[in-house]
Amino acid sequence: MEAIYWSDDSLKILNQTLLPIKVEYKICTKWQDVEIAIKRLEVRGAPLIGVVAAYGVVLGAIQYKNDFNNSNDFKEKIREVSYRLSQTRPTAVNLFWAIEKMIAVLNNISETTDAEIILKLKQEADKIFSDNKESNEKLALYGAELFTKPVNVLTYCNTGTLATAACGTALGVIRAAYDQKKIVKVYAAETRPLLQGARLTAFELMQDKIDVTLITDNMVGWLMKNKMVEACIVGADRIAANGDTANKIGTYTIAVLAKEHNIPFYVAAPLSTFDFTISSGKDIVIEEREKEEIISFGSSITAPLDVKVFNPAFDVTNSELISAIITEKGILKYPYSESISKICREEA
Amino acid sequence: MEAIYWSDDSLKILNQTLLPIKVEYKICTKWQDVEIAIKRLEVRGAPLIGVVAAYGVVLGAIQYKNDFNNSNDFKEKIREVSYRLSQTRPTAVNLFWAIEKMIAVLNNISETTDAEIILKLKQEADKIFSDNKESNEKLALYGAELFTKPVNVLTYCNTGTLATAACGTALGVIRAAYDQKKIVKVYAAETRPLLQGARLTAFELMQDKIDVTLITDNMVGWLMKNKMVEACIVGADRIAANGDTANKIGTYTIAVLAKEHNIPFYVAAPLSTFDFTISSGKDIVIEEREKEEIISFGSSITAPLDVKVFNPAFDVTNSELISAIITEKGILKYPYSESISKICREEA
Repeated sequence: MEAIYWSDDSLKILNQTLLPIKVEYKICTKWQDVEIAIKRLEVRGAPLIGVVAAYGVVLGAIQYKNDFNNSNDFKEKIREVSYRLSQTRPTAVNLFWAIEKMIAVLNNISETTDAEIILKLKQEADKIFSDNKESNEKLALYGAELFTKPVNVLTYCNTGTLATAACGTALGVIRAAYDQKKIVKVYAAETRPLLQGARLTAFELMQDKIDVTLITDNMVGWLMKNKMVEACIVGADRIAANGDTANKIGTYTIAVLAKEHNIPFYVAAPLSTFDFTISSGKDIVIEEREKEEIISFGSSITAPLDVKVFNPAFDVTNSELISAIITEKGILKYPYSESISKICREEA
Repeated sequence: MEAIYWSDDSLKILNQTLLPIKVEYKICTKWQDVEIAIKRLEVRGAPLIGVVAAYGVVLGAIQYKNDFNNSNDFKEKIREVSYRLSQTRPTAVNLFWAIEKMIAVLNNISETTDAEIILKLKQEADKIFSDNKESNEKLALYGAELFTKPVNVLTYCNTGTLATAACGTALGVIRAAYDQKKIVKVYAAETRPLLQGARLTAFELMQDKIDVTLITDNMVGWLMKNKMVEACIVGADRIAANGDTANKIGTYTIAVLAKEHNIPFYVAAPLSTFDFTISSGKDIVIEEREKEEIISFGSSITAPLDVKVFNPAFDVTNSELISAIITEKGILKYPYSESISKICREEA
């Protein structure tokens, strides 16, 4: 099942809010369709948001072609669209990273016709998409090397095809290690409030015939105490230069529990998830979302409607709690400031 | 709002599965109505289950009066009903404790008419109910002494009027300390899968105009890391002789997080929750419940219907993680084997 695909000058987005009940693609013909899809979490997952935003820029360019008398004004309009798309969610850095790449291409375009500009932007979005797939596969294989004997693992939120439009970050590693018979069983924590673990991860793993058992988030400690899991692996929305990692709310709790039970806690994320402009997790903006996510689910009311709610969408796990960060360039170990800058030097 | 009340030879039980949407009392005229109400969690909370089961025995006696030619056969039938009621849920020890009290009364009844037997049983059930209220109030006041300056607290599941038919165990302490202005704000974790924290605790505290904020269970670590709570207080379903405590699944996770963040973790429970026949938590039977609780909520589907699920209803927190156990006889401190047996000696 493809999370997104491009055809006929439009981006088709699998509406993840309807899964697992309904498989339905939203057809985005305007950049505003993409903006809404990201805000409403119809499409989510840090790497995928980056790809989708890039295509959103292309849609904007298509939308406004022939509206301007000169290419500079056209480009300025595209910059405005890009800015708006970058404001859809505050935490995942892949979004800003992808938009920056699109802007860089835009700034370097010497061609002057609108069609030429659109073509270049579309090529860059396609490249972000295909690079994402390629780096994801590499990351998955590196991650599988961390497993030396068959174990049960715990994963959190959704980091698979539905989050990356590729094999997945944490789920990519799980898929690769499962293929290599190094993972026996996967526990997926449901991930309140929006249940990405239950609705998306369990769904994806079942489609792949990987042995998955669903638990509620509050069972993680008990699972570990009973030695039912031997490793945890999660994704990331933003990683600071020192390795502090923002990820779905609840990740920090799992990391603390893993430390208490001497279980390795791995983060899997492409280099596009790193934010080298911030030295630690303290500088990561944490999105707070609406109370409706907590007081209701579907048509069911789950709490008094007028109750006060605290609803941060992410938390930050300090780097000391992370046993390794798996990237497409290899495995990073603590202290991450050093290992990250080493990889970046090699990259440069 | 009363959790239960007795009138016209029947027990009225506030159906907690319908809260906070609907306030509806189930009228139990047969012991089987009580059996179903306990199994379906229409009534829940360790102390309250004990009270309700005692009234269930009375209902059984009323049901079968005049069915037997001699009082011994009648008593034997009541014993059978009592046994069946004791089998409704396996973890909360208050259930067995209350049934044992009823059986002890039954065994000592010298009266021979069915009406006299019923009267004695009804008196004992009333006594269990009123003793529960009285001990609950004492417990609440002892607990409030633990708070010396105004703090924000976290609580879990529901331990209030709806769990005890009194002021509550952990919630009783919170109510008393709030009255004394030693608690500023309460965070209630929703308590998946059945959301007793969201549906019942938030509801009760809002009715009492106590400042409550609802969070999902996976936010607890982040809350502590951000110093938003300074103490945790929970109830218990069974406490072993060494202080190991079975309580709603997720409690152990909170206790580990509290330790990591140097926050006190308190358990509030009447002595009827202690099981002196077991030396540690290893011997506590943990109820596993049906998968439907996790894959759906109300009419909403929350996961693939054919997913495998692990659904323990309780977990066990080792006594080292518990800063104090609050009872109606005072505050117990670690090591609990000693402090518990001291209180029991005083009690005897």
